[in-house]
Amino acid sequence: MNELIFQEAYLRNFTESVFKKIGCPDEHAVLAADVLLKSDLRGIDSHGVARLSGYVRLWEKKRINATPDIKIVHETPTTATVDGDAGLGLVVAPFAMKVALEKAEKFGSGWVAVRNSNHFGIAGYHALMAVEKDMIGFAMTNASPLVAPTFTTERLLGTNPMCYGFPAGNYPPVIVDMATSAAANGKLEIAQRKNKPVPDGWVQTSDGQLTTDAHALKSGGSLLPLGSDRDHGSHKGFGLGATVDILSAVLSGANYGPWVPPFVSFIDPLPDLPGAGIGHFFGAMRVDGFRPVDEFKQHMDKWIERFKSAKPISADQPVVIPGEPELEAEVYRRENGIPLVEPVVKDLNELAGKLGVSLLKQQI
Amino acid sequence: MNELIFQEAYLRNFTESVFKKIGCPDEHAVLAADVLLKSDLRGIDSHGVARLSGYVRLWEKKRINATPDIKIVHETPTTATVDGDAGLGLVVAPFAMKVALEKAEKFGSGWVAVRNSNHFGIAGYHALMAVEKDMIGFAMTNASPLVAPTFTTERLLGTNPMCYGFPAGNYPPVIVDMATSAAANGKLEIAQRKNKPVPDGWVQTSDGQLTTDAHALKSGGSLLPLGSDRDHGSHKGFGLGATVDILSAVLSGANYGPWVPPFVSFIDPLPDLPGAGIGHFFGAMRVDGFRPVDEFKQHMDKWIERFKSAKPISADQPVVIPGEPELEAEVYRRENGIPLVEPVVKDLNELAGKLGVSLLKQQI
Repeated sequence: MNELIFQEAYLRNFTESVFKKIGCPDEHAVLAADVLLKSDLRGIDSHGVARLSGYVRLWEKKRINATPDIKIVHETPTTATVDGDAGLGLVVAPFAMKVALEKAEKFGSGWVAVRNSNHFGIAGYHALMAVEKDMIGFAMTNASPLVAPTFTTERLLGTNPMCYGFPAGNYPPVIVDMATSAAANGKLEIAQRKNKPVPDGWVQTSDGQLTTDAHALKSGGSLLPLGSDRDHGSHKGFGLGATVDILSAVLSGANYGPWVPPFVSFIDPLPDLPGAGIGHFFGAMRVDGFRPVDEFKQHMDKWIERFKSAKPISADQPVVIPGEPELEAEVYRRENGIPLVEPVVKDLNELAGKLGVSLLKQQI
Repeated sequence: MNELIFQEAYLRNFTESVFKKIGCPDEHAVLAADVLLKSDLRGIDSHGVARLSGYVRLWEKKRINATPDIKIVHETPTTATVDGDAGLGLVVAPFAMKVALEKAEKFGSGWVAVRNSNHFGIAGYHALMAVEKDMIGFAMTNASPLVAPTFTTERLLGTNPMCYGFPAGNYPPVIVDMATSAAANGKLEIAQRKNKPVPDGWVQTSDGQLTTDAHALKSGGSLLPLGSDRDHGSHKGFGLGATVDILSAVLSGANYGPWVPPFVSFIDPLPDLPGAGIGHFFGAMRVDGFRPVDEFKQHMDKWIERFKSAKPISADQPVVIPGEPELEAEVYRRENGIPLVEPVVKDLNELAGKLGVSLLKQQI
């Protein structure tokens, strides 16, 4: 597929303009654009500006509130629940992470559950907020139901990502940012666009048969938890997805399981919801709450060096340290621009036309 | 294989006697036996009294200290690092979890990293200590290196289990207790004893070829991370195992990666260790730090009911809620006794003979 390349600042400006046009306060527009751009910079193209029109459609359906009154509704010295007032997750999540950071600053750790929010972009953005302050960061969110628990055919969990971030010394931070399903939905969408089969173990049909048909999800099929089947530990992937759902939503008062409101605007939320919006969960722990930061970073470097030297099966594919490819992409794309595929550019320009924002034009 | 059945109290008494004979203070012997018995009761036969002689062999090698001075060496209001003084993990871990519980009682949450410890039994025991106090419990530990990172052939991580425990209302607590490898080593040992092949995706040979040979581990092979291969998300299993290793050891000052001392006494630890003993990590968060306990439990019950009603692929295999099979085993075995296979009974009686403890005799 043809790609067009845009400089980060140009795309950032465009994205901010869109958020301002739907009524977001300037500060929110800047922050929301920053979260989306971070995803594009880090090479996670499915979670960046490609989703911008999706957020706007939810706003049009009045499912996203452009001027939310985000607030703490319950707290102790180190825990809190935040109500996002149906705001953009891109704005609600950094608010909540800041609360966790402030608590950690004072008491060593801070933990914040969030309800009444929306899609928060990449989990890594929020965990990195802690890592930049020499803290360990946790970020997770539940999401539209697509994944069936082991032994079942019902879509009861989202791809529910979890992220753990650790600062290092001379090396980039270790950022483990992963969906708890065998494959993220974005990978399926790529196969759908190309009409290509997917590996066995990603998807099952509506009656629970394994399939390589990337379109099976559209005919009632479901994604499989990490592990793919019971023999290979799919009950563990299910357990991790359940953990994210409970921490993000049962703990906060958001919707869980099949009641999580769909990200796509053309599917309405179910009736009789048990909670408010979607849920997130964040945590921050000061490294120096456990040992001096310098000592920790020296050992992180030693850990990274030892794992980087792991003997590869094939000389052309060395080990990958979690977070390293994303940082490499970020450095490259800051310099060389962000590639967008043509359908995304077309979609963004339709949005721009509708809202009265200057159209994107290829610069490079 | 023939099984002999023993009443819980009888086996508990035997286990306490063994720990006392190696010089553990009474209180430690009672606690260590409680952790092992909990594993046998919950049906996790690989982590119960079957390991008793392994602990004793480590004590004989002076790698386990029967009279440790376990202490907090670093802390903030909600974080701490505990030095286990080379004690039994079965004793060090509950000490550390109690520190986390006390901090959570006062400040909402408590987080404790542990160094200089040994194998701590099942992670679920420690997480349940929090759950019983209406808290959410976290427990994890690193372990002897057996798992190769994705794309490599080197055993750099243990099966590094993580456990998340959540209290519920009318239902048993949800306990997600899982190795971060595709299969736990115990499952491989069963296949080895029976000379049966294992599923593809559990093990690779020393040069990184997938194999169904359960014995491959003994000839330089390695276990695979959860996900089994890159296409099915083994980089996520690697990321989770890395997370456990970093939280348990890089944060606490224990050994990590290939330096984690082996559980088996006939393999010596590597020279030039970067830390002390093996490491654990524990956490506790008060549920009422986020929302009232009754509200949380009502929603946990609703969550469990909805997931229990998930449409099964096959009528004879319903969905499994994490923690439910273990609780069922516990109820059954408390009543009907704990089965041990003959080789385990023989091993325990050799131990008893050596230490001067009354031999185990089948009662039922």
